[in-house]
Amino acid sequence: MDATRKPSRKITREIAIGNVNIGGGNPIAIQSMCVTKTHDVDGTVAQILALEDVGCDIIRVAVPDDRAAAALPDIIRQIHIPLIADIHFNARLAIRSIENGVDKIRINPGNMAADKIDDVLRVATEAGIPVRIGINAGSLERDLVNKYGHPTAEAMVESTLRWLALFEQKGFENIVLSLKSSNVLASIEAQQLVAQKTDYPLHIGVTDAGTLLSGIVKTSIGLSTLLREGIGDTMRVSINEDPVTQVKVAKAILKTLGLRGGEPEVISCSSCGRAEADIRTIALEVEDRATALTEPFKIAVMGCTVSAAGEAREADYGIGCGRGKGAIFKKGIVIKTVPEQELVSELFKLIANDEKKIIEDRKTPAEHRKDPVAV
Amino acid sequence: MDATRKPSRKITREIAIGNVNIGGGNPIAIQSMCVTKTHDVDGTVAQILALEDVGCDIIRVAVPDDRAAAALPDIIRQIHIPLIADIHFNARLAIRSIENGVDKIRINPGNMAADKIDDVLRVATEAGIPVRIGINAGSLERDLVNKYGHPTAEAMVESTLRWLALFEQKGFENIVLSLKSSNVLASIEAQQLVAQKTDYPLHIGVTDAGTLLSGIVKTSIGLSTLLREGIGDTMRVSINEDPVTQVKVAKAILKTLGLRGGEPEVISCSSCGRAEADIRTIALEVEDRATALTEPFKIAVMGCTVSAAGEAREADYGIGCGRGKGAIFKKGIVIKTVPEQELVSELFKLIANDEKKIIEDRKTPAEHRKDPVAV
Repeated sequence: MDATRKPSRKITREIAIGNVNIGGGNPIAIQSMCVTKTHDVDGTVAQILALEDVGCDIIRVAVPDDRAAAALPDIIRQIHIPLIADIHFNARLAIRSIENGVDKIRINPGNMAADKIDDVLRVATEAGIPVRIGINAGSLERDLVNKYGHPTAEAMVESTLRWLALFEQKGFENIVLSLKSSNVLASIEAQQLVAQKTDYPLHIGVTDAGTLLSGIVKTSIGLSTLLREGIGDTMRVSINEDPVTQVKVAKAILKTLGLRGGEPEVISCSSCGRAEADIRTIALEVEDRATALTEPFKIAVMGCTVSAAGEAREADYGIGCGRGKGAIFKKGIVIKTVPEQELVSELFKLIANDEKKIIEDRKTPAEHRKDPVAV
Repeated sequence: MDATRKPSRKITREIAIGNVNIGGGNPIAIQSMCVTKTHDVDGTVAQILALEDVGCDIIRVAVPDDRAAAALPDIIRQIHIPLIADIHFNARLAIRSIENGVDKIRINPGNMAADKIDDVLRVATEAGIPVRIGINAGSLERDLVNKYGHPTAEAMVESTLRWLALFEQKGFENIVLSLKSSNVLASIEAQQLVAQKTDYPLHIGVTDAGTLLSGIVKTSIGLSTLLREGIGDTMRVSINEDPVTQVKVAKAILKTLGLRGGEPEVISCSSCGRAEADIRTIALEVEDRATALTEPFKIAVMGCTVSAAGEAREADYGIGCGRGKGAIFKKGIVIKTVPEQELVSELFKLIANDEKKIIEDRKTPAEHRKDPVAV
């Protein structure tokens, strides 16, 4: 496979999670999971609204008890993205969650009494919602662990296919699959294998990836490998950080692979002994302000003239910091030189002006007529 | 290529950077670059010593002026890893750096007067040190930018081969190559292409990757793609963060790919509404203490019994947090239950004991005889 081209997607069955369709060539949906207590309705809703703001497409909450299940209708009423209930062990809580209006449930059939799964599937069928079969290396059936010695990729796939056969036998095919392991390579392999063997949509991830640095590294490597092979219909970044960060990392992965575009991009040099300014602080401020832009500009933040004149040349806009002052670039040409503390504000004045013109130029004649300022 | 197996390395020419050999199948060396002013000897040495502590193999400093070049001997005297001088424009500074004892220089020939490069190569030959030809998308020769329209991967490779031919014509082959672009996909492609065309060792990286989150994502995707194809003899993570973080990210990438082992690993769940404790804080503390371990233990930090009993089963040690207390696991078996605030200290008491036994068991009979306690 040529790693440098935009990946072509494996076409899976299309299923609906509330108003978000996944599979069937739909854009890859970004998921996250609340870290609030689900029975804390206000806290959970606040977290979900913050996640919606940064581009989370689907949200999951844990439903470990009756208080959590009872809170679901109040949460659903106040949010705008589909809600998934995450259930372990307890079929009754799965059924209550479905009755309380969730858009999908996630169960790990390996830890649920087999005779109760029938009831869950019946209620899910009535509600018309999908079920994710979430296989986890840590909770594989005993006979498979014995057969393979360890929870290998092959063992995880055999477990998945076994549950899939059982679900299909009961006439239930509104299914999403996931196979996760904290071993990145085993995780990749299991997801590759299962993608060859079924056409159900896949929820991809690397579970328990760890804290910020190593978590982002493991997840980026694991998910990009799958996404480049066209595998993955919905994804979650399971790092030990707040869910907003998880969503930002997911978006960065998709953007790097060319699977999600149309957003501004900020590049910045890694700084070195040549830099005369605090590039990191300036770059973070530029990144923050760039999120409000509507055009997909590429903005470069450079610490010295070597970088500003060179690497920043291909950017739409750039700033090159010098001693106490800096230059503002547009397409590699210096537009003006200003004191360091005015660099960012002057840069965004210039960009805002250009953005206004672009939006204006894009208006149809009819829109121009409606807009007295433009006449 | 099978992405799930440990990559096999492309064998390049072996070259020596001080006491670190790269290429020829040697381990991939991790580099970083100081953000201190090079003329600030104390600050630069302190940063390099901190980098040595976290596993940096080779360090680079900017040499933008005579003060920086003059400081090099004082720095070299106080550090233990090879020092590289990063030079732009100025051949005289390159020569002074070599005379002042650096182990390698990095030049971007595209921004150095061509007639001065002869002198640089002559002095480098006399000193017996290698030169990195650092091609950057931003400073390509004008004729190549015109020919390809943009600084494409092909343009970067053509520039590299042109300089390589010139160096070889002058009898200089003690060379490391790098081709960097802030466009991750172009960067990967250029490095893949050049690896097919030459057998000089490659310094790999994604330049100007940006701030923490997106920087780690871009770098992990870019570098892992190359490393999996066996490309890369030395690497740098160019994110806009302190160099210690750059080295930690580099190590995490190599570890995830199975290219650097023998170190403890901490996995931790991403937390959710089931968690009864602050998993992130506990995981960070465990990670911090785990760096002092000598055995490559896998330690799991889990937020609830679901995860602790399942995903943590394959770990050597684990803690599963409950309400105000937690369980300490060894190979999936609960060893003891302790109050939350004693979890980490009790875990490491257990590990320290086991580690002592392992080290003891590994001693030869002769060593046992020398050690009166063991008799």
